[in-house]
Amino acid sequence: MRAAVLAAERRLVSIDLEPVPPGPDDVQIEVAYAGICGTDLHIFHGAMADRLATPAVLGHESSGRVASLGDRVDGLSVGDPVNVMPLRWCGSCGACRAGHTHVCQTLQVIGVDLPGAMQQLWTVPASVVLPVPGHVRLDHAALTEPAAVAVHDVRRSGLRPGEKAVVIGGGPIGLLIACVARESGAELVLAEPNPYRRAVASSLGLTVIDPYAVDVAEWVDDWTAGIGAAVAFEVSASEAGITAAVDVLEVRGRLIVVGIHQQPRPVDLNRVFMRELTLHGARVYARPDFERAVELVAGGVVPVDAMISAKVPLSNASDAFVSLESGDDVVKVLVDCQA
Amino acid sequence: MRAAVLAAERRLVSIDLEPVPPGPDDVQIEVAYAGICGTDLHIFHGAMADRLATPAVLGHESSGRVASLGDRVDGLSVGDPVNVMPLRWCGSCGACRAGHTHVCQTLQVIGVDLPGAMQQLWTVPASVVLPVPGHVRLDHAALTEPAAVAVHDVRRSGLRPGEKAVVIGGGPIGLLIACVARESGAELVLAEPNPYRRAVASSLGLTVIDPYAVDVAEWVDDWTAGIGAAVAFEVSASEAGITAAVDVLEVRGRLIVVGIHQQPRPVDLNRVFMRELTLHGARVYARPDFERAVELVAGGVVPVDAMISAKVPLSNASDAFVSLESGDDVVKVLVDCQA
Repeated sequence: MRAAVLAAERRLVSIDLEPVPPGPDDVQIEVAYAGICGTDLHIFHGAMADRLATPAVLGHESSGRVASLGDRVDGLSVGDPVNVMPLRWCGSCGACRAGHTHVCQTLQVIGVDLPGAMQQLWTVPASVVLPVPGHVRLDHAALTEPAAVAVHDVRRSGLRPGEKAVVIGGGPIGLLIACVARESGAELVLAEPNPYRRAVASSLGLTVIDPYAVDVAEWVDDWTAGIGAAVAFEVSASEAGITAAVDVLEVRGRLIVVGIHQQPRPVDLNRVFMRELTLHGARVYARPDFERAVELVAGGVVPVDAMISAKVPLSNASDAFVSLESGDDVVKVLVDCQA
Repeated sequence: MRAAVLAAERRLVSIDLEPVPPGPDDVQIEVAYAGICGTDLHIFHGAMADRLATPAVLGHESSGRVASLGDRVDGLSVGDPVNVMPLRWCGSCGACRAGHTHVCQTLQVIGVDLPGAMQQLWTVPASVVLPVPGHVRLDHAALTEPAAVAVHDVRRSGLRPGEKAVVIGGGPIGLLIACVARESGAELVLAEPNPYRRAVASSLGLTVIDPYAVDVAEWVDDWTAGIGAAVAFEVSASEAGITAAVDVLEVRGRLIVVGIHQQPRPVDLNRVFMRELTLHGARVYARPDFERAVELVAGGVVPVDAMISAKVPLSNASDAFVSLESGDDVVKVLVDCQA
């Protein structure tokens, strides 16, 4: 079978690999689609090299069908459409013992630390496989994993119906957070400098502003009659983003740190103090978030058509990475592992 | 009557002032003691000049006895020992309407925005006056206000019995947080560079480390078998303090921002994300915190003798400020308004 393997920094090659046969508790999946995420791009650029599996098959956003099953696997049949929740935790560290397995101190991501979905036959433990409703298209189902991130972020914010929220950054996760937050009854504004991404957000009926053209804090001040927003999601991973996210919040507002900031950022702790703000880090998702994301994809809340900018065959996966890193007008690119 | 008035930057003068007669809803207090707090020192150095009342009588930590009462005041009698909870809120802003009056968007502090306790007869609204149990000494009762800050900080942390907490900074508020947290059943360590303050903390039976001599994060790592602390209180208002506070926390740990950081501080948001940390700003106190602080002073939880380093007569208040700013070996200095 074919697999896309990271052979060196910025070099993804399509090679033949021997499929891994499923053990008694495993499922072998015929992968349909694998989405490319920001983390994959970082890895493509040479980041996290010490963590990568051998062979370095990326892909932690995926959809597919059951190809074969281990002897001890119940509840799944060959041909079933499935998602993979690509997390492996130790079960014994302080975080796991406290029930926070998704922030396990030695969390492994399948598709980073273990071989991922950019291959035609992919063997994973049955415990991470979730069924997808039969009517859901498999390209759409490939968006379940990033949607689960958004579900987790919104849940961590404690957002309530009628509250006003600001999403800083309109890439795939920012768009998904906006859609999930809107579904929960909140009023939303999304700040994104890229015109293409703003257009995508507008086409979804979201209110969008350009943070290079308007002062986000002033805009929110007007929007909220001087009170501020209840929640801000910082998804841009930029210094300007975290500054704006702190500045837009009302007294006792909640800031969800979603973006991965590669360096310490200046934070206005005096404002955090004066307004009794709360900042919550939010990382990946717990299983209930993932199950909810399956429902949101099936229910049409996840804007699959607007988000899927392109599909490229597995043999050309490298091109998709290059296109994404060039900052072209894309939201989400899927690698088609069937082609 | 005599009052200590800030006449210019670093110049506090003792003058005669006409007492303000109580209106129908006011209480006139014969002030016993007024504590000097870090904010008072900042003001002494010229900060917040645009906020100061005229005359600029400082003092928001106090104790005294009722001298006279307005016609409409119930439940108090002349001679009663009292504390003043020195906050005035608007009642109509977003924060007040949401029930968070102590973080009112135009909060006024009596002793900053309105004339404070460093005078012999002080008139305040009856609504901010709380009775002090009769057996409590009035010098001890002057510690109720900072104790209320500590009660609020600990409450905001959600600290549970048996949890491990780190207090960064062993000034008056840090010491009080440590004592209040210990009373709630937590295990504690306090990090403080000043040897005198470390000795005071040790004399109270607290575990104390010198952050200049040991790596606080490594120390906590050993203490918690690699897991990290559940809660960190950042009271030092320093860059090193906020860095250490982020570094010591376990997965899902909570950081309470108590110190007033005059400038944005670099914060390791990647760690906030990876460990799903929570940062809470915590400012002053709500009335239940203040009432609890009255109980803790009366109950001996607040280490009054260890904390009160000196008492100076009102006429020499300026000397007390100079002594505090010199970094002499002091914790809390009280201005004796009876002398």
